[in-house]
Amino acid sequence: MYTIGIDIGGTNTEFGLVSRQGEILRRGQFATRQYTNPHTFAEALKGEIARLLEGMGEIGVAGAGIGAPNGNFYKGTVEFAPNLPWRGIIPLADIISEALGVPAWLTNDANAAALGEMVYGGAKGMKNFIVITIGTGLGSGIVVNGDMLYGHDGFAGELGHTIVFPEEGRRCTCGRHGCLEAYVSARGIIETYFSHNPGAADQQGISTVLIAERAARGEEAAIRTFDYTGRILGLKLSDAVAFSSPEAIFLFGGITKAGANLFNPVKKWMEHYMLEIYKNKVPLLPSALPENSAAILGASALAWRMS
Amino acid sequence: MYTIGIDIGGTNTEFGLVSRQGEILRRGQFATRQYTNPHTFAEALKGEIARLLEGMGEIGVAGAGIGAPNGNFYKGTVEFAPNLPWRGIIPLADIISEALGVPAWLTNDANAAALGEMVYGGAKGMKNFIVITIGTGLGSGIVVNGDMLYGHDGFAGELGHTIVFPEEGRRCTCGRHGCLEAYVSARGIIETYFSHNPGAADQQGISTVLIAERAARGEEAAIRTFDYTGRILGLKLSDAVAFSSPEAIFLFGGITKAGANLFNPVKKWMEHYMLEIYKNKVPLLPSALPENSAAILGASALAWRMS
Repeated sequence: MYTIGIDIGGTNTEFGLVSRQGEILRRGQFATRQYTNPHTFAEALKGEIARLLEGMGEIGVAGAGIGAPNGNFYKGTVEFAPNLPWRGIIPLADIISEALGVPAWLTNDANAAALGEMVYGGAKGMKNFIVITIGTGLGSGIVVNGDMLYGHDGFAGELGHTIVFPEEGRRCTCGRHGCLEAYVSARGIIETYFSHNPGAADQQGISTVLIAERAARGEEAAIRTFDYTGRILGLKLSDAVAFSSPEAIFLFGGITKAGANLFNPVKKWMEHYMLEIYKNKVPLLPSALPENSAAILGASALAWRMS
Repeated sequence: MYTIGIDIGGTNTEFGLVSRQGEILRRGQFATRQYTNPHTFAEALKGEIARLLEGMGEIGVAGAGIGAPNGNFYKGTVEFAPNLPWRGIIPLADIISEALGVPAWLTNDANAAALGEMVYGGAKGMKNFIVITIGTGLGSGIVVNGDMLYGHDGFAGELGHTIVFPEEGRRCTCGRHGCLEAYVSARGIIETYFSHNPGAADQQGISTVLIAERAARGEEAAIRTFDYTGRILGLKLSDAVAFSSPEAIFLFGGITKAGANLFNPVKKWMEHYMLEIYKNKVPLLPSALPENSAAILGASALAWRMS
């Protein structure tokens, strides 16, 4: 028996056929934006997945898990996703289920990352943990009592939009000021770097990868950028621990390749701000999933959990 | 069938015999501090409860629920409770269970308040909600997916010790700076009032009740005190909503008698700081439990849930 994991991103949609052990037998991808209608998107997906299954014989497919930005697990919808080509509220789980002829479940990408970590990764056997995904934005997937925390309406776990600096903080993409995501995200980290190294603002192609390389080489502005990033993230992680008292916190995303340059300051500041009863009890860990498979694995983990 | 609800406070221990409908048939109390040993405390409790049951005939007692500061549900312990006369880690659920001859379960007082709200109060039928208890400190009981959120180690839900003003904020009783509790608690509100009305610092017997009365009479400093309190609490409640997306938030404690003088500014600022997807969706409600019975009811609710 297999599941299909589908990760719908603003740029690409990736999909794969996944075993219960987390082996991706076959995989593929296509550009999301070429389908301005979710139904033609689902038809294209159907064709791609039929090709994936060609010559596989009579294998069973238990269902499809979908990870998508602004995804709502309860309703199976994608709602007002600014980075997807479809406007409004799209009942995407139903559309895809109908096209593929198998049950389908949908959640947001950060929740999918947490489910992937739980089913195949470093959170195996854990009942309470948090995954923070750092990319263009900052997402979070929170697991409590062994279950994904969806909350009353399916939109729980927006730690990127908890507030660090009310009023006077940086403008966030959500329209408010001072959100965690405005500081701890690719965009936020680059902005911090410019503030520590104003000359760099003129340089083409500054990226978090480049800043991490400069920190590794000992560049002062880059090191201070990671320290500041770690301080803000550490502060909000200490708040998160006071909320749900997790067994561990996982960081996920390209920026985690910065390794100790990122983890050390986050850990230092998290412990600095931590309430005594939690101090030195909550490991801060890198995701144990390979980055290029994590999205498909996370989506497929949802299907394994539900089917 | 009945349960026994026991609320252990720094001053008094209250207990009562509670029906499944939340009727307290009989109740009593004694001073906690006269028992410097938890075993003599439990023996005294046994005697008191035997008197409570006198003449009741053959009624069944399903078990005892205990609410206590620094209580740990998983372990049934009270750990390093600064306001109780017992030092260190006390296995109080076991001690009381043995003395009374019935099963006993223990949780902290804010969690007991949330359980009481869920079983008898305004949160009946809700699966995701938060209760904030404002008294000497600020406690919180968080319910997610229909279950109390205890976290990995039993110490989840310390929203009073999430940080509003890192480093430069007010000193908190926990030793750190800028915790929510340092602003939103009896002590915190009085300190805010003094800052808005320095003359009042000399007055004897300033209390939150008095400040609420002054706000009701239109005194500027008192009104500004509630607005500032509401701003800080509203900010952190908006963070809490981004975490667990509750159906409602309940405020509990004597200060809630201030009514609109408290609720209006908290509500105003909570919505001000709220992420768009949650705006005007999360009612802020007073606890529906009578204040003088809530602690016993909350403790008994734990026993009903577990027995």
